[in-house]
Amino acid sequence: MQNTMSDFKIQSVLITGSSRGIGLEFVQQFLKSPNPPQKIFATCRNLEGPQSQVLKNLSEKHQNVILVQIDVTSPSSVAASVKEVEKHLNGQHLDLLINNAGVLTHSNLESQTSEDMLNVYNINVVGPMLVTQAYHRLMKRAEGTGKSAIVHISALLGSLEDVPSLFDHFPVISYRCSKAALNILSRCHAVGYKQDGIISIAIHPGWVKTDMGTDQAPLTTEDSVGAMMKIIYSLSDEQSGTFVDWQGKTIPW
Amino acid sequence: MQNTMSDFKIQSVLITGSSRGIGLEFVQQFLKSPNPPQKIFATCRNLEGPQSQVLKNLSEKHQNVILVQIDVTSPSSVAASVKEVEKHLNGQHLDLLINNAGVLTHSNLESQTSEDMLNVYNINVVGPMLVTQAYHRLMKRAEGTGKSAIVHISALLGSLEDVPSLFDHFPVISYRCSKAALNILSRCHAVGYKQDGIISIAIHPGWVKTDMGTDQAPLTTEDSVGAMMKIIYSLSDEQSGTFVDWQGKTIPW
Repeated sequence: MQNTMSDFKIQSVLITGSSRGIGLEFVQQFLKSPNPPQKIFATCRNLEGPQSQVLKNLSEKHQNVILVQIDVTSPSSVAASVKEVEKHLNGQHLDLLINNAGVLTHSNLESQTSEDMLNVYNINVVGPMLVTQAYHRLMKRAEGTGKSAIVHISALLGSLEDVPSLFDHFPVISYRCSKAALNILSRCHAVGYKQDGIISIAIHPGWVKTDMGTDQAPLTTEDSVGAMMKIIYSLSDEQSGTFVDWQGKTIPW
Repeated sequence: MQNTMSDFKIQSVLITGSSRGIGLEFVQQFLKSPNPPQKIFATCRNLEGPQSQVLKNLSEKHQNVILVQIDVTSPSSVAASVKEVEKHLNGQHLDLLINNAGVLTHSNLESQTSEDMLNVYNINVVGPMLVTQAYHRLMKRAEGTGKSAIVHISALLGSLEDVPSLFDHFPVISYRCSKAALNILSRCHAVGYKQDGIISIAIHPGWVKTDMGTDQAPLTTEDSVGAMMKIIYSLSDEQSGTFVDWQGKTIPW
């Protein structure tokens, strides 16, 4: 019997990097879904300033949108956020964690610097490692009490197999290295947390019109996130540890 | 026509982390090979102290063993080493670079720290990125003037496909993430440096009796390095961008 996420509702979700782009779109589409989660923890590094104004407006209009500050590179910031989220959950599980916060910087084999390698890895890999580790306690389940899921927003550019196809246009060494590492981290979560009823999946959102993807991108955030929502709502145990694109198509490692 | 490394002799080789384990064994086996390289640049982080005594003895006995200090995590140390090596090469190419320096630390999903993730990545991935970037100029070739090769000492534990088989005994999160990232870096080197006549390959040396591998390991450094030497001496263009074990068997990403 397939145990799908639709066996139980997503009553709570936490999204990192939700002040813009794909993260913000996830907040909006969860709000518009047929059964919106009772708690949408919309987190970002900086809740002050104009960047998070759209998110602030959403949380003023919708009482199920709860703003939480998380700098994913800071263990103390992540730990503080868990305490806050735990109060709101009031004994309930965290059903879904979307590790979305990430950066892309431009580099090639000649220009790549050590500092950028470490900075990108810190945000794109160490961040999801820390956040997942800290929220594991709120996600894990006793047998027969349903499923939780971790969604890692990854990228085709992190596929080892696919390197030759886009290397000339997008060498982006630090980004590729970070996403390959994120994908193996997702595999580790799938294997290590299986006994806790937690599914882990890595999704390539497509090339999306965001600050990161630029206007050249062919996909809108609406279409990308809309497609990913379908994948998330129908997640099954069998998909844990896989790497798929926004349409659910398997991507080779 | 297959263009193999045996089409031309390995007249110069640079090995990082060569004061012990696999790196030291490479130095010794190159010395014993039928046509030893004229220049064996044996590098390690710290040339002082008892750890590098064996290497010092070798360089006193063999004039083709040239000790060079490289801290792979330091751009200035790497840059200084290139100047030194360039003088010794005296206009010749560097034929072979073996990115061997690396660390393994023990961690699992619960105990993994941010500091360790960054430290391991810095040594195992940023190091090979910096060293390869700096030596590229000495390795690249005009068409028809032969081949150079980069060998990345990787690990089966960095295979995404293989995670389930050894995860329970060796979760080693920071190490797995670093080796998956190293493998995609090797792919980038294979694609990006193809036009420069440079082959790049990632090799899993097996589980070897070294300080890293411990006495429990089934393979001796002699057998592991002996087998890898055969792979290296017969490297062909077709193998560039692949991931193989010490016996030449392809490992899935």
